[in-house]
Amino acid sequence: MSQENPDAAAFDRLQSLVAQDLERVNALIANRMVSESAPLIPELAAHLINAGGKRLRPILTLAAAQLCGYTGEHHIRLAATVEFIHTATLLHDDVVDGSDLRRGKASANRLWGNQPSVLVGDFLFSRSFQLMVETGSLEVLGILSNASAVIAEGEVLQLSTVNSLAEDDKIYMRVIRAKTAALFEAATQVGGVIAGAPSAQIEALARYGDELGIAFQLADDALDYGGATRRLGKSVGDDFREGKATLPVLIAYQNGDEDQRGFWRRCIEKRRQEEGDLEHALGLMSRHQALEKTIERARSHIAAAHSALSLFPESPMRQALEDVAGFVAARAA
Amino acid sequence: MSQENPDAAAFDRLQSLVAQDLERVNALIANRMVSESAPLIPELAAHLINAGGKRLRPILTLAAAQLCGYTGEHHIRLAATVEFIHTATLLHDDVVDGSDLRRGKASANRLWGNQPSVLVGDFLFSRSFQLMVETGSLEVLGILSNASAVIAEGEVLQLSTVNSLAEDDKIYMRVIRAKTAALFEAATQVGGVIAGAPSAQIEALARYGDELGIAFQLADDALDYGGATRRLGKSVGDDFREGKATLPVLIAYQNGDEDQRGFWRRCIEKRRQEEGDLEHALGLMSRHQALEKTIERARSHIAAAHSALSLFPESPMRQALEDVAGFVAARAA
Repeated sequence: MSQENPDAAAFDRLQSLVAQDLERVNALIANRMVSESAPLIPELAAHLINAGGKRLRPILTLAAAQLCGYTGEHHIRLAATVEFIHTATLLHDDVVDGSDLRRGKASANRLWGNQPSVLVGDFLFSRSFQLMVETGSLEVLGILSNASAVIAEGEVLQLSTVNSLAEDDKIYMRVIRAKTAALFEAATQVGGVIAGAPSAQIEALARYGDELGIAFQLADDALDYGGATRRLGKSVGDDFREGKATLPVLIAYQNGDEDQRGFWRRCIEKRRQEEGDLEHALGLMSRHQALEKTIERARSHIAAAHSALSLFPESPMRQALEDVAGFVAARAA
Repeated sequence: MSQENPDAAAFDRLQSLVAQDLERVNALIANRMVSESAPLIPELAAHLINAGGKRLRPILTLAAAQLCGYTGEHHIRLAATVEFIHTATLLHDDVVDGSDLRRGKASANRLWGNQPSVLVGDFLFSRSFQLMVETGSLEVLGILSNASAVIAEGEVLQLSTVNSLAEDDKIYMRVIRAKTAALFEAATQVGGVIAGAPSAQIEALARYGDELGIAFQLADDALDYGGATRRLGKSVGDDFREGKATLPVLIAYQNGDEDQRGFWRRCIEKRRQEEGDLEHALGLMSRHQALEKTIERARSHIAAAHSALSLFPESPMRQALEDVAGFVAARAA
């Protein structure tokens, strides 16, 4: 894949710059998933954690610490913390969404039921706090506990607004900023904090993470409809079937005539869908360039992520972080 | 009630000793339940938090801090923290158990569905960590994050063992120590820690909380069958219907003949219950004095809780904490 796609190569380059640290993060994760009293915990957690996620968030923490010249040990713990929080939210998301699949495999709630998914999520969340406490940094604890609260708020807000077609994108942007970008932001920010970087650098890293996270979610939401090149894979249309008013839908809705708006209201707000609706939806998106405009929006956040790093001296790590921002949007282009 | 029952009067005395602090805790709880972006959060949280719980756990934190002569402000935050953790676990428990009722009212998952219950639980859990961080005490953060992990482990262990009849009480005791006593223990311990008490006092408070929590759960499990006086209320037999192998069941099973053991296996392990089974179960418990023995066990933990406090100089607060331990078992006597 890296050979074909220059942006995927950018991710590989970033990963190789933190490869040694990442191995230690993986070992720590494996070590801390263990529960003496409940063997079901590591079994279920491993299903998700080993399921081929890219470890993008913990890699960002490691990279941010390295960019700031950190030479200590705590970034390993923080990277594991970030991955645990992410995994806990995935477990709970799948329960909330009633998802059957996660990363192409049967989801944990499908295999073990909702009960252990809720409780193992709670366990991983607690473990993440134990790991943070071990860093001894109250500042880091503040950042990550705030991020966790913001993520939960975003998920609750999404719950009550996800099927609502709106005239503007305010609520949508608020939701993705909270449910996705908040953890990216905290992941990069704590890398700088633990390195004792000057506050301007820490702010720049937070900004980079926030913009990158927004771009990531925008790209994901375009990708759910096949992306700009309309690659039709197995999971195309999941958001449509669930009636999620993501940005591609909002753009097509906002630019549609009364007939088209009626179509979206029926499919998204009332969730009364018929055969052929997804194809019709894709046609309307094409007519209004909804996917192109979504990716364009992602690109503007990537440019902002890029420029946030400009205060750091040039280095292979800064270059890799800049390039990986491009990778995040290119997935959907 | 206080007039009739000397042990309930003990709880009132403890409550009145911390009444001013408790008002501030309640104000802080109300203040921190608010979420600007998701109004559903305070609505759902208030349903549970204002539902007439006794606030026993936060009261214990306030009392422990006061017993150690604390004059600062952080015990208010810690008491709210403890109540938030407790509420989060209740929300998730009700989802896991599929409960329709909580404290005699429709449960949150019944009224709003499982989705917001999971997510608002996550939010309250995050809020609890934000509150702890504000105390600036890494020791407190360590104790409460450990307790949270232990609680989750206990819940997962319970999930896989709750319908198992065993020849001994080891797993049962491990579960109740984790799912119930761990938070009591942390609640009293952090009161001592925040007061800067000597380590012997902190250990004594932790011991008191642990023993009290075990006694509390034992009494609860006896109460579910009407307690020693077999008061038959609306909720008698809930544990039986759910096939929970609590101590009263284990005692009756362990002391039963082959016929009786077959009855318990059918009702608890296979959960094939028929009309009249609860009455038969109560008869077997009576024959084997299962409820009396459960309460006796609770009393021995209360005695241990009592004696843990002996290193503190005599005071109205020490007296109230000793007496409230009696109250915890007397509920079921």
